Amino acid sequence: MSTHQNKQFSESESDLLSEIMAARRDVRGNRFLAEALDPDDVDKIFVAALMAPSVGFSQPWEFVSITQADTRQQIADSFFVENEKAKALFRAGNYQAGQLEKYEQLKLEGIIEAPLNVAVFYNPQKGPVLGQTSMPEMGRYSVVCAVQNMWLKARSLNIGIGWVSILDPEKVKHILHAPQDRELIAYLCIGKVDKFYDQPELEMLQWQQRKKAEQVILTERFDT
Amino acid sequence: MSTHQNKQFSESESDLLSEIMAARRDVRGNRFLAEALDPDDVDKIFVAALMAPSVGFSQPWEFVSITQADTRQQIADSFFVENEKAKALFRAGNYQAGQLEKYEQLKLEGIIEAPLNVAVFYNPQKGPVLGQTSMPEMGRYSVVCAVQNMWLKARSLNIGIGWVSILDPEKVKHILHAPQDRELIAYLCIGKVDKFYDQPELEMLQWQQRKKAEQVILTERFDT
Repeated sequence: MSTHQNKQFSESESDLLSEIMAARRDVRGNRFLAEALDPDDVDKIFVAALMAPSVGFSQPWEFVSITQADTRQQIADSFFVENEKAKALFRAGNYQAGQLEKYEQLKLEGIIEAPLNVAVFYNPQKGPVLGQTSMPEMGRYSVVCAVQNMWLKARSLNIGIGWVSILDPEKVKHILHAPQDRELIAYLCIGKVDKFYDQPELEMLQWQQRKKAEQVILTERFDT
Repeated sequence: MSTHQNKQFSESESDLLSEIMAARRDVRGNRFLAEALDPDDVDKIFVAALMAPSVGFSQPWEFVSITQADTRQQIADSFFVENEKAKALFRAGNYQAGQLEKYEQLKLEGIIEAPLNVAVFYNPQKGPVLGQTSMPEMGRYSVVCAVQNMWLKARSLNIGIGWVSILDPEKVKHILHAPQDRELIAYLCIGKVDKFYDQPELEMLQWQQRKKAEQVILTERFDT
């Protein structure tokens, strides 16, 4: 067995990782280019997914790679229905002036524009999973770690990913003929982009303010 | 506004990211060194967390940094109780011979051994969150993305992280005086290590086999 995994990374290597993290964006349809992805790049993104940690080494993930136009149109239809429901919620809420108008102007997905969609599922294991016996959510969280690996790997390949969550998970399962026990964790739109924004789009638009470190990092316990 | 986020990464830079991902391990108490972490390194790990994607830019995370011995002992006590429950489940199950014995020999946490523990919470926002209206789990998944960023950043700094999930989340909340609406997502043990294993420990021990890409990557839909 090789010992290369025991490698010590240098400061500049660690800095590069942070640079990739900082440059990663959630990409929507207004930034995707139609050009097809290099299959080698797609393979590399999946290899990154499979290097994610998983509870009890359960690897409870399943990825459906989607390019067919009719499937994507059906998914986009679910987005449309769910987004109308979302607008109704924002309309009903007690929001600051202009918030609903801002919401309505946002492009929130790239289902049709991106050349590749990937639906990511949780495939629960029968019987107890090591590490999941007290926290049943752990299997789902392993799948999310795989998604984050894909997102970072894609960005390092100068490829954008957008995570679409304004979808009815049961409708997506139906469209993709998923077995009943599977659970949709993420729906990803993947493609080359004309540019990556410098900041998250919702930060640029002042939809929500960036929290300061001292607001979210506490010492020893909550009330000290 | 600078345009450095639009940076194109090179193939060797992308390869380095994969190398960090491949070298990341779940670290337990038998590998942690007692020596304190450099505060600059801890800061860098938190900076990585805060660069994670979050649904609707909600940044619904909260991190409690724990070094006090009595707090860690209380958390370790919860691990002990939950791990006895887990063993009972593995004992009752219909497992291959030796599985329970294997389980009992595993060191599954490093709560006391690691110089730093970090409890990671989901802090739900009041009112609808953009992108979370159809999939309420999205906020929790944002917090998991932050954990995966921390894990990768730590590895690039040659620091190990172990995610302990054999804990009663309500007990952990009580120990840390967490407000009722918070939810424990992850409990991390962080520290320098004597070595990183070449493979996941559970893979080396053949607890579970590594899945092949073709088992988990499907094309267009489930039944084609």
